[in-house]
Order: sequence, then C-alpha cells, then structure tokens
Amino acid sequence: MQNSNLDQRSINALRFLSVDMIEKANSGHPGLPLDAAPMAYTLWTKHLNINPEDQQWVNRDRFILSAGHGSALLYSLLHLSGFKLTIDDLKNFRQLGSKTPGHPEYGVVDGVEATTGPLGQGFAMAVGMAMAENHLAAQYNRPGFDIMDHYTYALAGDGDLMEGISHEAASLAGHLKLGKLIVLYDDNSVSLDGPTDMAFTDDTTKRFEAYHWQVLHVADGNDTAEISAAIEYAKQHTDQPTLIDIKTVIGYGAPDAGTNAVHGKPLGQAHMAYAREKLGWDYAPFEIPSDVQEGFDINVKRRGMANEDKWNALFAAYTVQFPDLAEKFLRGFKPVHAELDLPVSHVGESESGRNTSQRVIAALSEQLPSFWGGSADLFASNKTNVKSASAYEVDDPLGKNIWFGVREFAEAAAVNGMILHGGVHAFGSTFFVFSDYMRAAIRLAAIQKIPATYIFTHDSVAVGEDGPTHEPIEHLMSFRAMPNVNVIRPADINETTAAWKAALASSHTPTLLVLTRQNLPTLPETDNLADEGVQRGGYVLSPSEGETPEGILIATGSEVQVAIEAQAQLQKTGHDVSVVSLPSFELFDQQPDEYREEVLPSHVTNRISIEMGATFGWERYVGLKGKKIGITNRFGESGNPADIIKAFGITADNVTATYLDAFVRETNATV
Amino acid sequence: MQNSNLDQRSINALRFLSVDMIEKANSGHPGLPLDAAPMAYTLWTKHLNINPEDQQWVNRDRFILSAGHGSALLYSLLHLSGFKLTIDDLKNFRQLGSKTPGHPEYGVVDGVEATTGPLGQGFAMAVGMAMAENHLAAQYNRPGFDIMDHYTYALAGDGDLMEGISHEAASLAGHLKLGKLIVLYDDNSVSLDGPTDMAFTDDTTKRFEAYHWQVLHVADGNDTAEISAAIEYAKQHTDQPTLIDIKTVIGYGAPDAGTNAVHGKPLGQAHMAYAREKLGWDYAPFEIPSDVQEGFDINVKRRGMANEDKWNALFAAYTVQFPDLAEKFLRGFKPVHAELDLPVSHVGESESGRNTSQRVIAALSEQLPSFWGGSADLFASNKTNVKSASAYEVDDPLGKNIWFGVREFAEAAAVNGMILHGGVHAFGSTFFVFSDYMRAAIRLAAIQKIPATYIFTHDSVAVGEDGPTHEPIEHLMSFRAMPNVNVIRPADINETTAAWKAALASSHTPTLLVLTRQNLPTLPETDNLADEGVQRGGYVLSPSEGETPEGILIATGSEVQVAIEAQAQLQKTGHDVSVVSLPSFELFDQQPDEYREEVLPSHVTNRISIEMGATFGWERYVGLKGKKIGITNRFGESGNPADIIKAFGITADNVTATYLDAFVRETNATV
Repeated sequence: MQNSNLDQRSINALRFLSVDMIEKANSGHPGLPLDAAPMAYTLWTKHLNINPEDQQWVNRDRFILSAGHGSALLYSLLHLSGFKLTIDDLKNFRQLGSKTPGHPEYGVVDGVEATTGPLGQGFAMAVGMAMAENHLAAQYNRPGFDIMDHYTYALAGDGDLMEGISHEAASLAGHLKLGKLIVLYDDNSVSLDGPTDMAFTDDTTKRFEAYHWQVLHVADGNDTAEISAAIEYAKQHTDQPTLIDIKTVIGYGAPDAGTNAVHGKPLGQAHMAYAREKLGWDYAPFEIPSDVQEGFDINVKRRGMANEDKWNALFAAYTVQFPDLAEKFLRGFKPVHAELDLPVSHVGESESGRNTSQRVIAALSEQLPSFWGGSADLFASNKTNVKSASAYEVDDPLGKNIWFGVREFAEAAAVNGMILHGGVHAFGSTFFVFSDYMRAAIRLAAIQKIPATYIFTHDSVAVGEDGPTHEPIEHLMSFRAMPNVNVIRPADINETTAAWKAALASSHTPTLLVLTRQNLPTLPETDNLADEGVQRGGYVLSPSEGETPEGILIATGSEVQVAIEAQAQLQKTGHDVSVVSLPSFELFDQQPDEYREEVLPSHVTNRISIEMGATFGWERYVGLKGKKIGITNRFGESGNPADIIKAFGITADNVTATYLDAFVRETNATV
Repeated sequence: MQNSNLDQRSINALRFLSVDMIEKANSGHPGLPLDAAPMAYTLWTKHLNINPEDQQWVNRDRFILSAGHGSALLYSLLHLSGFKLTIDDLKNFRQLGSKTPGHPEYGVVDGVEATTGPLGQGFAMAVGMAMAENHLAAQYNRPGFDIMDHYTYALAGDGDLMEGISHEAASLAGHLKLGKLIVLYDDNSVSLDGPTDMAFTDDTTKRFEAYHWQVLHVADGNDTAEISAAIEYAKQHTDQPTLIDIKTVIGYGAPDAGTNAVHGKPLGQAHMAYAREKLGWDYAPFEIPSDVQEGFDINVKRRGMANEDKWNALFAAYTVQFPDLAEKFLRGFKPVHAELDLPVSHVGESESGRNTSQRVIAALSEQLPSFWGGSADLFASNKTNVKSASAYEVDDPLGKNIWFGVREFAEAAAVNGMILHGGVHAFGSTFFVFSDYMRAAIRLAAIQKIPATYIFTHDSVAVGEDGPTHEPIEHLMSFRAMPNVNVIRPADINETTAAWKAALASSHTPTLLVLTRQNLPTLPETDNLADEGVQRGGYVLSPSEGETPEGILIATGSEVQVAIEAQAQLQKTGHDVSVVSLPSFELFDQQPDEYREEVLPSHVTNRISIEMGATFGWERYVGLKGKKIGITNRFGESGNPADIIKAFGITADNVTATYLDAFVRETNATV
C-alpha cells in the first residue's frame, strides 16, 4: 500500500537526518537508517508508548536498537520525538564529548535504554527487560490495575542473529514465553563484508519457531501499513515472543542500495544528492519540515504524555487501594537499601564462600521483593538459589530462582537488561572460569555504569579434580584490568558478608563476587575488622608486633589464612611482618593516600603477595623487589585440591621460606 | 532389537570401567558414561576409523567428546581400544599428574583429539576439523586417490546445545554443507541442576533443520542396531552435516537414572551395586572379561590397522603419481616453515599494522598451500583476506578466505579445530575489542598448546568514532595475564613483519597479533633491530647518548613513536633517556636475565610506560616509583582519533612533562 505523504516525508526526515549526521561526521553507518526508517517510524509513532518529557516513567515501553551501528537513526528518532537532543547535538555526531557518540550509550542521553554495538547483546538485554516486566507484572498487578504492562521492542539486524548470544537469549525467551517481547528483524541480507548469504543461510523463521517464537513476515520494508499490522498482531498475541521478519533493502534510495557499499561509511555528496533526488527530499541538510515535526509531536510525545497521564491516574488509585504494594513496587526502581544483619562469625567457625553467600541471598530475598537472580545450570554448585523460593517459570512468574540454562553470556546480558529496566535488583552466577563466556556482557555493564552483581564460585585451582579447563588462573587479574568493575575476593565468612554489602552499596559499578568452593575458617579479628576493611578494599588484618613491620604479606581470599600462618612462623624466627587482606584492588585504590600508606607503608619493601592465581599484576603492590606466590604462566591441574595447593606452593612453609630467602639472606649478604 | 551378548557386555564394560574410575576417584560424572556407552561403543567398534597404534595417522576419523565431563567414558574407550592408557592410568583418574585428568586433555594422552569441558567448544572444534578435511580433500584428492577422506564425529550433550557457540558453529557447518561431520546428540534431557525442560525446550530437530542439517532420530539409546544404522545413513548422505538425536536415560542402570542425581557425582557403593545387579555385571571393579577385550582388539584396533595399511598403500601410489602434491600435503601436517622475505621498510615510509599484515598474509598464502584463514565479517577492516584468492565456499572448497560470519567465538574454536586436525595452518580475525567474544576459545588454545594465530586490528582508542564499545582498553593486559599466550603489539612495518615471524615460529603457544587501524611511520633503526628485537619481545630501539640512561621510556605499538619524540624533547632539556620497544611481555620475560638487564638496567628507576590501554600491569616494568601513561580505570570515547589521543594525553609533550615532574623535580627537591 501507499504510505501517506506525511508518513513518507517523516520517514525521509529520519533517513536524511541520519545521512546528514553521518556525512557531517564523515563517519557512520547509513545502510540501516535508510532501510529501517519505515519500521522505526511506524513503531515509534503508532505503537511505542514513551514520554519524551519523562524518560524515567516506569511503565514506558522499552526500545533497544540492538544493531547499535545504526545509532544515527535512533538519535534522529529521539530528536524528532522531543527528547533532550538538539539539532546541534545531531550535528556533533561522533565528536568527542557529544551526546551523540558512535554507538548509542546509556546514560549519555535520555531515551537510550541500553548501550549497544557489540552485536547480539541488545537482543539479550531486551530479553532481560521482558523478564523483569513479566516478573513485576506478576508481583504487582491486581485486577483492574495493570500497573506494570508494557512491551519491550528490539530492532535487530543480521549480525545480531548470527551471534551465539542470540541463540541463548532467544531460546530462553521462547522457553519463558515472553509474549510482550517483540523483535523487529531488519532483514536486509547484507552485512559489512557483503551479502549475508556468503556465510549465513539459516532459515531464520524455522529457527525461531524451533524456539517457540511467533514469526511474522513483512515482505516490503517500506510498507508501513503491513509493518504496523504485524506489530499490532504481535501485541495482541502474547503467548509467545514475536520476531517480525521485515525484508528491507540496505541503504534504500542510495545508488549502491542493496550492497555492502552502503553499510558502514558515509554516502558522499554525489550519492547523497542522488538519494535526495530519488526519494524526493529537497530539504537542506538537517532541515526538518514543520509538519513532520508536528507529526512527531502529536504521535510520539503527546500520545506518550497522555498515556503516562492515564497511567499516573491508575497508579494513584492503586496507591490508595494497595499502599504497601505501591511502595514496594517503587522501591524496586531505587538503589538497594537493605540491612544485612547476619550474625558475625568468630574463630572456630568455618564455611565456604558460596555457602555464606547463599545465606546472604536468602536474607536479601526475605527483605527485598525486588531481589532475584539465577545460575547458568549451576545452582547446586554456585549455591545461588533461594531455598524457600520457587523457580521463575511460565507457570510461576513470581518465582525468584532464574534457571538461565547453560547460557552464561545471555545470563549476564539479561541481568544487565533487568537492571536497566529497573524494578528489580538482579544477579547471575556461574563458575569463575566461565566468566570468560560472559566477559563481553560484564564489560557492557561496566560501560553502562550499572550495578549488576555476578557471583562466581570455584574461584581457584582448589576446584581440584575438574582440572585446568575449570580452574581460573588469569581471571582475577583480567577483570582487575577492566575499568569500572569491582572484583572482590573475600577471605572468610565475615569478609563474604561484607563483600555482599559492598556489592549492594555500589550504584554505578558492577561487582564480581569471587567465592570459594571450599570451606574457609573464620580468621582472627575479621569479626571486628572485615566490615569496614572490605568496603575499603584492603586492611591490616594482623598487624606486626612492633609499630613498623619488617615486611608485609598481602593476600586475598583463601590465601589470607596462609599469610596468617606464615606470619606466625616468621614471628618465631624473629621476623615481624604484618598481614594485609586485600579483597578488592579497585576499592583499595579509591582510598585516600594516607589510608593506603597506613596499610602498605612505602618504606616497607619486603613484600610478598599470596594469591592462587596469576602472579602477573601483583607488582602493583609488591613492586619490582617483592615476591609473588601464586601461579606463573601456567594453567591448573586435575587432582585432589590439597595435592594441587601443595604442588603450587601455596603453603605457609613456602611463604616463610620465600621471605627468608628473598629478604633475610639478602639483608645478611649486604651486612 | 536385542543387542548381542558380547555387544551388551562390552557396553557394560565401558559403563562399569567408567563408574569404577569415578568411584575410586570419588569424583566425576557417571551420568553420561552410563547412558552414552551404547552409542560410543557402536561408533568406535563399527564405524570409527582410527589406529590406536598410530594416533598420528593423518586420515583417521576424528572423534571429539564435546561433553567433556564424560571423560571417564572416553578413557575407557581409549584403554579398551589399545591406546597408551593402562588400567593403572584409569585407576588414577583425576589424580595429580595422571594421564586421566578430570576433563579430556589434548596432548596428555594419545587419542584425545581436543581438550573439552567448557561446553559447546568441542562441537565447534569439530566443525573446524570438518572444514579442514573438506578443504584438504579439495586440494589433494585426485580421481581414485581420496587420500583425505575421513569423518569427524562429535558426541554432544544438552549443555553443548544450549551454549551460544553451538548456534554459531552449527549455522556455519550447515551453510558450508559439511556432510562428513556427524554429531551424536546424547539427548538425555537432564543437566546438572535438573530436567532440561526447566530451561531448555527448543525443538532441536527443527532448529538444526533451520541450519540445513540432516537430523536423524534414535528413540532408544540402548538400541545399537538403530544407532549403527543412523550412523551408516549419515555416512552415506553427505550433502549436509548430520545430527543424530539419540534419546537416552541419564545414569542408565543406576537407581536414580533419569535424574540429575546421577549427573555429576559418584554413585556410591550401594547404588553401584544396584547398577551392577540391574545390568548383570558381576565382574570386580576394573576387571575386563577377555572376550570383551578381544572384541575391542578386533573391532577397533585391528580394523583400524588394516584400514591404515590400505591407506598407506594408497598414499604410496599417490606419492608415485603426484610427488609434488604428496610432499605439499604432508608438509601441512608439520610446523610452518616459511621464508618471509618482505622488503625491509625505512624511515619515511608508513603503513597501518593491518595493511602490513595483509601483505604478509598474501606472501604466506603464495608460499604455503596449507595457509588459510578468515574474518568474522570484518575482512574489509581487518585486511585479512588474500586478494588473489577466492572465498572458501560450498562451490569453491579450494577458497582460502573463510567467511566466518559474525560469529567470533565459533571462529576462534574452529581455527583451533583446524590446527588440531593438522594439514592446515589457520588464523582468524576480528576487532581487538571483540576478542572478548572469543576469549574462552583462546584460553583453550593456550591450554592445548596449539599455535593458533588470532589477528586483532583496531587495537586502541585510536579507533575513534566508533566509541567505547569498539575501543579496547583492558584487552592487552587481560591477555598478558593469561598463561601461554603470546601477545604481540608491533610499532611499525618492520615490527609487524617480525611479529608475524614470531607467530609462525611458535609451536606450542597461540599468538595474538594486535595491530593498528591507523598508519604507523617506520621508526629509525627498526630496519636493523626489529627482526631480532621482536623475537626477544623487547629491545632498546633508541639508546641513550651516554652509556647509562638517566631514564627509560618503555612503549608498545603506536606509542613507540611517541616515546621517540619525547626522548628528543628530553634530550634538549638535558635528560638522556633510552627508548625500549616492548611488543611482547611474554617473549621478553623468556629472555635470559642478562639480556633483560641490558634492556632495563635495574638501577635505572626513572621509568615511564606509554601504551594506549589500561595502565594496570605496567608496574611489572616501571615498578612502584615509575609513571604510567595510558588509560586508567576508564573506557574510551567516541570522537576523532586525534582528539581522543590528545584528550588521553598520549603525546610526547605529556611524556616529557610527566618525566620532568616525576623525576627531575623530585631530584631537585632532594638536592
């Protein structure tokens, strides 16, 4: 069918605003904006329920541009819809410090629901958002009061669907029957290097039907009536998630339309002029006809404002009728506030990190209706399930234990999506070694500055029999190198509880809780010191006897007990050292200079680090003259944990011998 | 149908050897061996073409236990088939230093074709092996001489198929119509936490048909005739890869069969006795009846030896008729030997790292028929395609450019599989930032000690406009922390060529070539020094004027030019420093002490590192008093590259100012 003239001109406005931005920046991806403008226009003006005046409206529809390289289209939509993005912002596309960076960045500009660009992750974050909506609706909606009732839309491209995470996320969404998740698939059959059929010939419909999705088709990506009808159908049929496969021509209107030549670089003046001619767009760059602007005002902004007004009235009535529920519901959208009042542990007690964490999770689940999470098929090992709660399932959307399946990457991205959605405080878990599978999603949480919590158990070669493929070595250091991530590896029960508190207190930084499989004895003084010490990242757990230590033993996690034992051995031989527990490099490095100097006095250079992982990186605290006890440039071993620990020399005897060898003999030699 | 008595007893021998191993180790996963023994037995005794006396036979069938936690079954098969694995080795299952570690480890025992355990990767490595076979067959087979003509089998579980990499790998295999790839799917519907239908309800048949696989079904996993018929059918119908969905009962024979209680821990004495009773196995632990052993001798070993004899005769005739081809073919199974005779570059010339690399690849492709590789849809950016060669496709299996699609993880795992297969020397490529997507596969290459080459372009924030999601920060350090990986970040054309040489010279360590997008000017003296300097990991590129430098500037990649500029500035102010180019921490750390002392004299403590990435980790070379110029605990920015580099202070002016501020003022203060 024919699009109305205003529709057509509005679509072209989106197209050329995008193309003009890319041209001015001399960088960007025009292919998607040119082909996907009709579907985006249709969704935003006819269906998407958002209020540009109130981006925080909790019941807004969510829209994720999973194909983040099409950012120019999203910025054009945001600008025309009345979000806080001026025409000058658009003219600054891809410039340093602009509100219009190369890929959409959450937190940089209102209306961007998630940072996208790394392909497939937008899709998976949308799945997480749909899970949050579904769970919250089950918790809080009451007859006549559907206060949580929105759709989650994603716009995905071929690249998204080639990525493995799309399998994990789609399989999970289909299993969970997330009927309010609607994905528009920009099926343009071209990726960066050429036609997708050089590498990608899936029967995508069949594939998604295998995941129990509803798949709808639109044969012509310019047919807005068909697109709108498909979206409407999807909205009405909510017993399955929906993929709307919309056949488009990449770079529509440009001379090289339909080829990879229009995918990822500016059209250039001549081709832009051709496209303007071809599509009948005779406006100057960045010029928006007033009727087009008015159309967006009416169909996005005013429609959204009216819808929020209606919802506000509904929620006001809900608050009267269900004041407790209303309060709890809103609290979920705010930072966590929990009083973790677990019993302090004393010397003589012992527990594994994962078991302590399980008690914390149980307590949090009790207190916080917003708190939930899951595991990638390792509940039994990670101990991250709440025993008193049920599984989150189609028939039990109130369940608190999320069975993510063996899908670590989608798990992490979905947790990110849940937190971006708000209303829930979420965590995910697996073995620490498999953080490798989810690394790209953890990075995206860090970039987005969201306080996701990832629980990683089986934190060292003490895993034992499962061997090198299951034993983390470099993982601690590799995450310490990642910006804006707090890695915390607690030493005993008290430190583990404190580590959880630090995770809950984090508002803009994801936390990795790195926990043992094996039992940890409660260490002397952690009952008094761990609470503050862990928040500070590191502290003197066992001071030297004299005011100034002769040396310092620095350890994390299960190795702090080794340091304490070595301290006693050294004391006997007349060497007075302190033991520093350093559960988090990141938190410690944020402390004032004086505090850090107090813990690690710079004139004390006899230093040994003890950590059952890569020694690379420990030079940061022990310097070039210090010694590092750990695992250097080799992987783990399969065997009994005690045998392995001994073979790697993670023993007090070895610490003591190393100290004497490095610092005492040397001292004698210089005497 | 009824299995013959010997078949049945042989299957039980596999089951109980496995269960006995697990029981003795008090650790392991009995569920899979009990249910999958019939399919494994059928495959190994009736179809699998291997010679336990000659594991290196190049035309053997490959068998990958993708569900690596079922290692006990594989070890039982290897032992009974006559590989170098004694009954005592089996009794040492999962003990430190044994040949029977918790998960199968390539290189530890003959007959293990790949290290598995991290789920999904065995499947993807099998795809890489099938690609290698297909490509080699096209290159070397001649009418009547199918010298490369084997099947690749994988045994995969539910967990493998839940992982995203299974989508990437299966989609690629279906696209490429790898008809000699046959996957036995142990469809037992139970994973670690419980029934798979808690999280995984895909219609797997439909899913794989969507990838254009042939899917066969065996309703009863104990029916060896049906299993054998399905394998035979798959072998005969080779226009598609085949998934044989074999319905099994996990832990078959044990009291808790069919539940997750038998998945991952020993049965215990009582349950083991029950299973022995139930399955009619009255032999002592580790006892093998002689007729069972004889059956394996005949049906695996002698059959395999006879088949290799036949192949040897065929290959001898082939060598007579096609001596050149035979020689080239065999050379592919040996370490690379190439004479990289590219022109040395001199000051005044410049080129980006990726473009230099492209010239190297072209030269290697010319010389080495075994050399091929590809990109995850970024040929245009990575410059890893050979211009004179075609794409590797169904209709052109001789093609050298592999279009992996937007499937980074499967790409890396498939490259690993190709190298494990032998006959080819393979590489993969993508943007450096997306190494996160393939990290788990790179780790598995390092564990397996295979010389895979990964080419990562767009190595820093100089990527520019694409912004933080596309700009690596922590990636260099995070891989430097990983054991047995050589990270090389060359500074100019000469170093890039030398870096490729180092990659080719590596026999047991994977190499990451980290290359720039932007042009690099050829630096003074690299024409003389880079070749040896890069092999050594680091070298004094520009010495101080005096014998002993006052300070040292240490840099990598595109920042070496900044160091040289700063050196000149400092010289003018009377400060005589040396410049060390340090392209590879790993190679440098392997040098003798004297060499390292020569490059970085320990008494010279005025040190500055310059690298456009995370500064964390540089303490290794600059110590606690040194300065680090780079990017500290923050992500990149979207903008013009020159603006970004300036904003991050990666300039000679900043290096000079930092040096003076840190070391000169301080010196003055102490005067």
